[in-house]
Amino acid sequence: MIVIKVGGSEGIDYDAVCDDVVDLVDTGQQLVLIHGGSHLTNQVATALGHPPQFVTSPSGYSSRLTDRAALEIFEMVYCGQVNKNIVERLQRRGINSIGLSGIDGRLWQGTRKKAIRVLENGRKRIIRDTHTGRVEQVNRTLLWDLMQVGLLPVLTPPAVSYDGEAINVDGDRAAAATAVALDATDLIILSNTPGVLGNFPDESSLIPTIERDEIQQVIQTNAQGRMRMKLLGAQEALAGGLRRVVLGDARCSQPVRRALAGEGTVIR
Amino acid sequence: MIVIKVGGSEGIDYDAVCDDVVDLVDTGQQLVLIHGGSHLTNQVATALGHPPQFVTSPSGYSSRLTDRAALEIFEMVYCGQVNKNIVERLQRRGINSIGLSGIDGRLWQGTRKKAIRVLENGRKRIIRDTHTGRVEQVNRTLLWDLMQVGLLPVLTPPAVSYDGEAINVDGDRAAAATAVALDATDLIILSNTPGVLGNFPDESSLIPTIERDEIQQVIQTNAQGRMRMKLLGAQEALAGGLRRVVLGDARCSQPVRRALAGEGTVIR
Repeated sequence: MIVIKVGGSEGIDYDAVCDDVVDLVDTGQQLVLIHGGSHLTNQVATALGHPPQFVTSPSGYSSRLTDRAALEIFEMVYCGQVNKNIVERLQRRGINSIGLSGIDGRLWQGTRKKAIRVLENGRKRIIRDTHTGRVEQVNRTLLWDLMQVGLLPVLTPPAVSYDGEAINVDGDRAAAATAVALDATDLIILSNTPGVLGNFPDESSLIPTIERDEIQQVIQTNAQGRMRMKLLGAQEALAGGLRRVVLGDARCSQPVRRALAGEGTVIR
Repeated sequence: MIVIKVGGSEGIDYDAVCDDVVDLVDTGQQLVLIHGGSHLTNQVATALGHPPQFVTSPSGYSSRLTDRAALEIFEMVYCGQVNKNIVERLQRRGINSIGLSGIDGRLWQGTRKKAIRVLENGRKRIIRDTHTGRVEQVNRTLLWDLMQVGLLPVLTPPAVSYDGEAINVDGDRAAAATAVALDATDLIILSNTPGVLGNFPDESSLIPTIERDEIQQVIQTNAQGRMRMKLLGAQEALAGGLRRVVLGDARCSQPVRRALAGEGTVIR
């Protein structure tokens, strides 16, 4: 079992990812696909008059500020357009897939945060009334049931709180939690960079391997922006028993195969 | 087993529908919920610069003109915002539900139309390259499997062609096909009118009952706009073995219970 997370940044080649998924499924590989949708969400949110807002936590992690209007636009793009587009791509290729959010079947449950702390112009501030949280429980039984009847799950945020509210969660960390719950060996996280860069944004400064006990150091010294969250996800996946996490590039042909072959940043 | 279809027109009270669903599930009623999203789709499509276009067939049925851009906006609203909102409403009420489009698990399969004939200013015209079709096969096994593990299915167009392409289908007729496939006794179709009106739009002219052999006549003499398609769906449902179809109002409290009690237009 492997879990493939493909981001939602500009430049990602979903057709190439789906081509690889077909090849893997044909060899008997069990897998779950998880995706993002940030770039398109930003475009749609702006067009609809609710431009995206991002906040940075005191420890340096940036995330989308999710009020109710932002959540509903997020759902439109992630669960509507991107999810159904990927499911359609797989159906076109003869793979029977099923697209679900974390709300569906309480697939991804967690606690809704009462408030978040953010750093704004160097000052700490508390923001309440955001619809965010973190995946704490994965409904692995449902995923197994679906795979048992031959369906390939295609999963996307949001998740759901124990009270049944939709909560935005980080997709990379949700992918890590899912990989752990399914006893996966590998988690492949694809985005629009070659992997972790020692000297961002210089793509020739790719760090080819990171040992698990070096992750925190890389987060603090090298990683920028979204990559910090991916490394945190990688750390959680390895702590949960995965063999390795590969951060790879989704802007090329055979992105999944390349990552499985060790191209990108291999973390173990 | 009953199937409830709730439309997507202005004024529909989804909270009232979900309250009723909870009460029905609590009494042990098996059900599948199917929904639309036309009003919100029109708003979002206009805001995104792709205003909706509608066409009328030579036999007088109106439908959304679905080019690829329209289809993707349709998916955003139907599969993203409306579907996840209903699933969230049910989760908030303690009902574990799962939201799916007809693409997911090839739930609703049909043939993509090569071209559609439309009437424009009294002249017939052929339009090609639309993404539309009709549900011909329902994956009843998947629906039973989901219900078996305690999940309430919440379904929405689009459907999928045999080639794996997303195709827009009429939600009322998809609901009819689903009700037939599940051997349902009743199909409840809720929208923002009291039922079929003898003298549209006079709501006091409600036709309380229609016999199945009168449907064609009502379509030709009384029914307007969207109601014609609902009557066609009702006809297909009854031909497929249902006991009755009720066209009811979703702008009031207890809309499902009222329809089940015979309020609206009962067709049998």
